Amino acid sequence: MINHYCRKPLWECNDTLVGVAQGQIPADTVIKDVRLVSVTTHEVLDHTDIALAEGRVAYVALPGHTADHCIGPKTQLVDGHGLYATPGLMDSHIHIESSMVGPSEYARGVVPHGTTGIYADPHEVANVRGLEGVRAMWEDAERVPLKVMLTPPSCVPAVTGVEDTGADIDATDIAQTMTWPATVGLGEMMNFPGVLSDETRPMDEIRETLKADRVVTGHYVTTDTDRGLNAYIAAGVSSCHESGSFDDVLAKLRLGMYAQLRLGSAWLNLPGYLPQLVQSGVDTRLCLLCTDDCHPNTIVSDGHMDRVLREAVRLGLDGVTAVQMATLNMATYFGQAQDLGAIAPGKCADIVLWQDLTDFQAQMVWIDGRLVAQEGKALFAVEPFAWPDFMTHTMELGDLLTPRAFDFPCDKPDGTAKVRAIGIKAGDTLTQDAIVEVPVQGGKLQADPAHDILKLCVFDRHHGSKGTYSHGFATGFGIHGALAQTVSHDAHNLLVMGDNDADMVLAARTLEACGGGEVAVQDGKVLALVELPVCGLLSTGRVEDVAAQVSQVQEAWRQMGCKLPSPFMTMGVMSLACVPVLRQTNRGYVNCLTFQMEPLVVE
Amino acid sequence: MINHYCRKPLWECNDTLVGVAQGQIPADTVIKDVRLVSVTTHEVLDHTDIALAEGRVAYVALPGHTADHCIGPKTQLVDGHGLYATPGLMDSHIHIESSMVGPSEYARGVVPHGTTGIYADPHEVANVRGLEGVRAMWEDAERVPLKVMLTPPSCVPAVTGVEDTGADIDATDIAQTMTWPATVGLGEMMNFPGVLSDETRPMDEIRETLKADRVVTGHYVTTDTDRGLNAYIAAGVSSCHESGSFDDVLAKLRLGMYAQLRLGSAWLNLPGYLPQLVQSGVDTRLCLLCTDDCHPNTIVSDGHMDRVLREAVRLGLDGVTAVQMATLNMATYFGQAQDLGAIAPGKCADIVLWQDLTDFQAQMVWIDGRLVAQEGKALFAVEPFAWPDFMTHTMELGDLLTPRAFDFPCDKPDGTAKVRAIGIKAGDTLTQDAIVEVPVQGGKLQADPAHDILKLCVFDRHHGSKGTYSHGFATGFGIHGALAQTVSHDAHNLLVMGDNDADMVLAARTLEACGGGEVAVQDGKVLALVELPVCGLLSTGRVEDVAAQVSQVQEAWRQMGCKLPSPFMTMGVMSLACVPVLRQTNRGYVNCLTFQMEPLVVE
Repeated sequence: MINHYCRKPLWECNDTLVGVAQGQIPADTVIKDVRLVSVTTHEVLDHTDIALAEGRVAYVALPGHTADHCIGPKTQLVDGHGLYATPGLMDSHIHIESSMVGPSEYARGVVPHGTTGIYADPHEVANVRGLEGVRAMWEDAERVPLKVMLTPPSCVPAVTGVEDTGADIDATDIAQTMTWPATVGLGEMMNFPGVLSDETRPMDEIRETLKADRVVTGHYVTTDTDRGLNAYIAAGVSSCHESGSFDDVLAKLRLGMYAQLRLGSAWLNLPGYLPQLVQSGVDTRLCLLCTDDCHPNTIVSDGHMDRVLREAVRLGLDGVTAVQMATLNMATYFGQAQDLGAIAPGKCADIVLWQDLTDFQAQMVWIDGRLVAQEGKALFAVEPFAWPDFMTHTMELGDLLTPRAFDFPCDKPDGTAKVRAIGIKAGDTLTQDAIVEVPVQGGKLQADPAHDILKLCVFDRHHGSKGTYSHGFATGFGIHGALAQTVSHDAHNLLVMGDNDADMVLAARTLEACGGGEVAVQDGKVLALVELPVCGLLSTGRVEDVAAQVSQVQEAWRQMGCKLPSPFMTMGVMSLACVPVLRQTNRGYVNCLTFQMEPLVVE
Repeated sequence: MINHYCRKPLWECNDTLVGVAQGQIPADTVIKDVRLVSVTTHEVLDHTDIALAEGRVAYVALPGHTADHCIGPKTQLVDGHGLYATPGLMDSHIHIESSMVGPSEYARGVVPHGTTGIYADPHEVANVRGLEGVRAMWEDAERVPLKVMLTPPSCVPAVTGVEDTGADIDATDIAQTMTWPATVGLGEMMNFPGVLSDETRPMDEIRETLKADRVVTGHYVTTDTDRGLNAYIAAGVSSCHESGSFDDVLAKLRLGMYAQLRLGSAWLNLPGYLPQLVQSGVDTRLCLLCTDDCHPNTIVSDGHMDRVLREAVRLGLDGVTAVQMATLNMATYFGQAQDLGAIAPGKCADIVLWQDLTDFQAQMVWIDGRLVAQEGKALFAVEPFAWPDFMTHTMELGDLLTPRAFDFPCDKPDGTAKVRAIGIKAGDTLTQDAIVEVPVQGGKLQADPAHDILKLCVFDRHHGSKGTYSHGFATGFGIHGALAQTVSHDAHNLLVMGDNDADMVLAARTLEACGGGEVAVQDGKVLALVELPVCGLLSTGRVEDVAAQVSQVQEAWRQMGCKLPSPFMTMGVMSLACVPVLRQTNRGYVNCLTFQMEPLVVE
């Protein structure tokens, strides 16, 4: 695949590189005396010089040689003595939206940690604003050096027929995205049941991707590593980040599938299989590292791929193999190894210097030959992006948010009624289809804070007054007050939960007013607010500030009585109709095993 | 890169594969209970079943499972008990012409040895008949199951300005070949001096290849593994089969270049570096195996890539790694790993069953799901190819072959003269610029058999009566009689050598009459003849018959007094102007260090 993520294609500058390598043209930069991590041979080569020109590596002085012949009067000299040089790290699967900032601010956050490229699936923005939203994100991305490589979302909506989203992407759209230079593959094909049952929509999306000579990235969650996994791979899906165990990982590798080993903010899979993988001694060339999601707090406190490498090494993987999984293996998978993934002549000068290969503290970072970060600071400016109006006006609620919308009418006399509630448990993404008793007063179902039963409303925020909303209950959060958020996978409708209507109305209206985000309200007072005006998903602020705001919301949850570890994340998947068991969309309850709608009142 | 070497692209048959994997559609073939060589994990998986459909692998039963659910009434069942299953072997760099048969007959020869794909550079035919000749070869190739993947020749002529060839291929031609579905990369860029000095022609050919998103294969012969090698790689050349030592190989791997480890009929490099490579423990994912050339006798007696694997294992490489180097690594390099190089769902069913991984005796061979060879026999028919006239009428000598052409006139009186002679040594491709004394009689230089000095004539056979011819001497062959051949790298002009004019004329005319080949003549009698009427390079017969004829010519050489191991090969490179020191083309002597023409008579 032609790589568009470089300063110049090789064919436009190879004459210069040939001259630099032979000392006829001075290099732009010479990095002296590093410990080169040779990902192609799995070696560390001490005392190595690297000469850069035209945004690419022109010359690597193997042991016994120097790059002194490449140095001219204007050549920038860097002393790398004692430092390890690796190719720039990449993330094989990431949703930028989890960081709650736009691509350029994301870049400012992760590049100082040694990340030079990401394979991003803008699934969340696409659910709100479709391909136009994706395009707007990539306009922002193009302003910064980070290589933000696009894998267009394959599953918008994630599940059809059970909710209302802001957009719909089909195979024709996918075919169109495959003509974009930004596109390097298809985003995670979550609809594996659709693939296994040969449904037209997912299969056609796969076909359009293969026809365009690009890879189909996957998402396969089941313990059937036999027939189902074979079928999924035979369909053309060639990678997957959803492995629950070493057996899952091994089955994928044996069947020729790239296994994306994940350490996200929320999904900490690495410890679950990496030690066994190391012990097995199998070839790891099809192993890729990824985060999938990185919350703002994680980026600010722990970093990005450097954090994944630290954990991988801590779990017993040798540092060079870990680097291979974050560089060469990935470039090979996406068909970009001619340009990315190694420090070698002709390849893009995406290089990181590290103190060591255990702590992975990035000292200096180059992208396309340009020094872009040093000692933890980005050296490039990130001006606020001028998001177009359609990206910042996505709370299309029309006149839905009346106080009466929060009434749960029923035809029962005063007393109690048996209703369905979504049962949640700490640390488990699966929910339960719980039957609980709630009070009935004046023909309305009521919350029951004494028994930890909260009201839950989901408002379609994409279709104005024509939109619908639904009523349900949740148990397990244990709060007094109300919370609302527009980060609500995957349709990102407006989710409002509370034990009293007044706080719920205030929470909902606060988000409507600011364009979306997360809010905590108690007794008529806003305790904490994260404003996410871009699609109700992204802040326009700095990642450090967003991290602080998210912490305040987390603190508010605690203050309101919640004991869950990351309650806003648990709340954020209450509508996620592709994961069992009971979920609530704007259309009502969905049983996510049968994909049938379920009534609220049981008896 | 889109792979055109399959029965159907995956996007046209993935629905069927999904059905087969899940037991809803019966497989075409089920291979039961093999020891699967998993090249992706570097494992051997015992008791594995493989189900095939649509020419692809639909399902691989990992340990604990079977493919019984894929078996229908029409499914072909194969018992693989105790046999090893590997992906079909490939040859990463081969000139079919060295086998002296056309592609289809070549296929008949090598497929029973487990070869399912070759990356072929039709450099020789192209020197005679240009791209039209290449196209004709590929028409023949398309009639057989072997995947004959084209890397168009980059260096026709190999060296400009010192000889006359039948064709000329420039960057515009290369750009055109890059649009052909058959093309997978650029053939070996032998003009490395041109690359290092940034000459337009080779650099433009590289650029056209990179723009077409294909790889540039290399040929880099020098001990400068520092600046020169860096420059060559930075130019965009990503593989090389010309390594003389382990240091060469290691330098290439470290600089991100694929190292093609060679065991040809003539070039036996493997022992020279493989043991050290094994001992070094470096990552071998960039190592590819190749033969470069395979003489008919080698194919008939020893095989093809199976022979290379045997030798690799004998030299200490483990069998699975050896298989990786002949399958997965190669498919990855050429951008075809989505379809080739592993036995995994969705990939082409190119599969070989072997008795073991040391002797590598192929038992059964499938290509695109079709059983194509069994117990050493090809199961597909190879009808003689109807070569077009322009391919079988290439002895365009006009009226050059008069007896007077074999007179070596000089302006010396009777006596002796000092002349240049090409000195050759057993087992060395380099020649010497020797000064010898020869008799002068009646104004003509004479051969001197008593001192092993033979006359050597090179006739341009591409330009009819307008062509030129040259006179020279050779020493080291030690024969009485004459030999002629049109296999004469790289222009493949007519080479005639002997100790008397009468035998030389007969030898030359014999080849003119039969369309080219190799002939041995003594005392007015043709001792042996290999007819190669296609471009003067390829027989229309069976590879076994050609091998027998070549042996007869070899026997004739011996009978005529020659003690060299493969004298016709040594003779075949007398005109090879890209290898030092002294060579003779149709224009005369060339010093291949200075690329200056040199006079015959010294004093």
